[in-house]
Amino acid sequence: MSAHIYKKIEIVGSSETSIEDAVNNAVIKAAESVRNIRWVEVVETRCHVENQKIAYWQVAVKIGFTLDEN
Amino acid sequence: MSAHIYKKIEIVGSSETSIEDAVNNAVIKAAESVRNIRWVEVVETRCHVENQKIAYWQVAVKIGFTLDEN
Amino acid sequence: MSAHIYKKIEIVGSSETSIEDAVNNAVIKAAESVRNIRWVEVVETRCHVENQKIAYWQVAVKIGFTLDEN
Amino acid sequence: MSAHIYKKIEIVGSSETSIEDAVNNAVIKAAESVRNIRWVEVVETRCHVENQKIAYWQVAVKIGFTLDEN
Amino acid sequence: MSAHIYKKIEIVGSSETSIEDAVNNAVIKAAESVRNIRWVEVVETRCHVENQKIAYWQVAVKIGFTLDEN
Amino acid sequence: MSAHIYKKIEIVGSSETSIEDAVNNAVIKAAESVRNIRWVEVVETRCHVENQKIAYWQVAVKIGFTLDEN
Amino acid sequence: MSAHIYKKIEIVGSSETSIEDAVNNAVIKAAESVRNIRWVEVVETRCHVENQKIAYWQVAVKIGFTLDEN
Amino acid sequence: MSAHIYKKIEIVGSSETSIEDAVNNAVIKAAESVRNIRWVEVVETRCHVENQKIAYWQVAVKIGFTLDEN
Amino acid sequence: MSAHIYKKIEIVGSSETSIEDAVNNAVIKAAESVRNIRWVEVVETRCHVENQKIAYWQVAVKIGFTLDEN
Amino acid sequence: MSAHIYKKIEIVGSSETSIEDAVNNAVIKAAESVRNIRWVEVVETRCHVENQKIAYWQVAVKIGFTLDEN
Amino acid sequence: MSAHIYKKIEIVGSSETSIEDAVNNAVIKAAESVRNIRWVEVVETRCHVENQKIAYWQVAVKIGFTLDEN
Amino acid sequence: MSAHIYKKIEIVGSSETSIEDAVNNAVIKAAESVRNIRWVEVVETRCHVENQKIAYWQVAVKIGFTLDEN
Repeated sequence: MSAHIYKKIEIVGSSETSIEDAVNNAVIKAAESVRNIRWVEVVETRCHVENQKIAYWQVAVKIGFTLDEN
Repeated sequence: MSAHIYKKIEIVGSSETSIEDAVNNAVIKAAESVRNIRWVEVVETRCHVENQKIAYWQVAVKIGFTLDEN
Repeated sequence: MSAHIYKKIEIVGSSETSIEDAVNNAVIKAAESVRNIRWVEVVETRCHVENQKIAYWQVAVKIGFTLDEN
Repeated sequence: MSAHIYKKIEIVGSSETSIEDAVNNAVIKAAESVRNIRWVEVVETRCHVENQKIAYWQVAVKIGFTLDEN
Repeated sequence: MSAHIYKKIEIVGSSETSIEDAVNNAVIKAAESVRNIRWVEVVETRCHVENQKIAYWQVAVKIGFTLDEN
Repeated sequence: MSAHIYKKIEIVGSSETSIEDAVNNAVIKAAESVRNIRWVEVVETRCHVENQKIAYWQVAVKIGFTLDEN
Repeated sequence: MSAHIYKKIEIVGSSETSIEDAVNNAVIKAAESVRNIRWVEVVETRCHVENQKIAYWQVAVKIGFTLDEN
Repeated sequence: MSAHIYKKIEIVGSSETSIEDAVNNAVIKAAESVRNIRWVEVVETRCHVENQKIAYWQVAVKIGFTLDEN
Repeated sequence: MSAHIYKKIEIVGSSETSIEDAVNNAVIKAAESVRNIRWVEVVETRCHVENQKIAYWQVAVKIGFTLDEN
Repeated sequence: MSAHIYKKIEIVGSSETSIEDAVNNAVIKAAESVRNIRWVEVVETRCHVENQKIAYWQVAVKIGFTLDEN
Repeated sequence: MSAHIYKKIEIVGSSETSIEDAVNNAVIKAAESVRNIRWVEVVETRCHVENQKIAYWQVAVKIGFTLDEN
Repeated sequence: MSAHIYKKIEIVGSSETSIEDAVNNAVIKAAESVRNIRWVEVVETRCHVENQKIAYWQVAVKIGFTLDEN
């Protein structure tokens, strides 16, 4: 029970509004293909800039989910 | 006067809403036991996920405060 | 055409409200002196604390811009 | 022949007994879905604590396997 | 439109001739199973040595591709 | 409820027998003065050597515990 | 006997004259509240600048001391 | 004479052909505005990918040059 | 007022006598072209050696200064 | 007396059984050619995998020994 | 048999033409004094610049070789 | 001529007085066994503490020297 096995995948989420929303978008997308997501680690935050303004936030995250539940 | 001595402690703050709020919660908690907080360094940002949604943000910070004022 | 040359400069933006606003302030300031900003990399997040409260956010960013357009 | 292509995946294995056993559990789980595992890189070691005692070891590993064999 | 979601996978490409060729081999292999590759990040460069000579280059890369296009 | 606040302290545990035992000794010692330990992060592993043999293992860990329970 | 347990705390010492003096000030201050200091690790060196001159050195150190002696 | 002062700037050079050519392009561009370049440090290597092929190499470098010669 | 914007530049100072003097020389040189220097971060310390003796110290620093004061 | 000079060498030890045994094998081998070993720093832990099982542990260590005793 | 012991040494190879050639020169030189070289890890890439042009590439590598074969 | 080959060794120098003196002692010791030392990289600074005072400085350095001159 205590001995779960997890997998981490690395996703880059984007958002025009905030870092939190970019992470949230990454989780929403990941949840389409993996079940049992447990945690997120933020590993890199960047912005794409257009016309001298921040156009959107790009946040790379590692998403951890349980492998051993059926 | 210029030669202050500071101590850093490492706190993990949580929030259901944002990274900033999680850091703020860490500072509020630290302020209960240490005086003269001067700065915060964000060292790690994670999320706890429940039901495939971000349940809360967990942000590890180092909090620096002055040791030498009485 | 594909072979642009970019320069990165390191700016620390501040804001009383959020990390995103601090980054935005850094970009606004940089845009006064460099053209063709393309991206931002967040490299360090700190807070200045006064009276045991977060007074403002300080976010160090690297700002990348195109050197080769005239 | 010398020019294999490998993929790395990141797994977190757990064990109540040791770091080695946690890594071993990660490899056993990975072996269910990938063939031709070649090496493991240990990237992070943590423990989950319950009742003031180490309940289990959690070891994050990168697992490398050959992609090009059919 | 600006808010793409990307995934990164980690591949190790090999080549007897150069670092660039090893990266290229990693991209060719990845392109067999993922569409819409956008960028590559070189993360580690090693050589396998046989008979006191470099036998081939092994370059670990992260490959980023768009998840949200159908 | 979801918004716990944690503190991390850094302890170096020692053992003549194994890395796991050194970590365990660090947790036992920490448990004498802090309650509600939740996790351990291994940050550095060293050995002290005497007479050309490993005399004991020294493992630096960060120990996280809940601050907000009374 | 060989299996001591140590704690590390992080202190920032300051000095108008040198890096060594800043570290020394950190040790003097730490010695007011902890006994049995064994070692210091220098982790970060900064200067505060006033009127375009270095006003004082600020050196962050980790200070290790024995926990298990009574 | 021995006490030169240098400045480092960070440039990202691009090339369709190789890492070395991308670095060379960065140096050529930097040489248009700074004199007395002494060394280059490669800090990051990436590729831009189009149509599932490497379109060009992007190499971030730090370029060091002497400030004190007139 | 609290929301200053800063820029960081990277300078390598040299000295035949000490690390502190090398940093000081970097600050003196930077002060010729930028105003309102606020802090220095030491990022790398090296020595140049001639005739089997340390000829001079080379210390790479990041120098932070205020951009928004007129 | 207090001013010893040490040298560090980097060794990779292997073992079929455990991380500790791999480190021990590195120390035994090093002790054949250097005297006065004082400490070991574990810098990297990997496994070689054969037939989908961990075949042996490979642990890279830095071994520190006194240079100045005759 | 599986439990080889390796040593790593750090060499900086140079070349006027390419990174690969600089690494190759490091291996050729190392092969004069050590036998049984197994792998190379590239750890740092720099260029020496003269007359505003790259004069040669300097690549620091760690070279791993077997210690236990006689 | 431009294509020298260098080797780096890692030495820990000690001194009761200063960081610079500890580095100098490391160079003096290294100069007994290697010729043509070219540079030093400071990699770690620690202090040994006795009786609540800094007893001596321990500075780990990498020392680079030319291999190819006879």
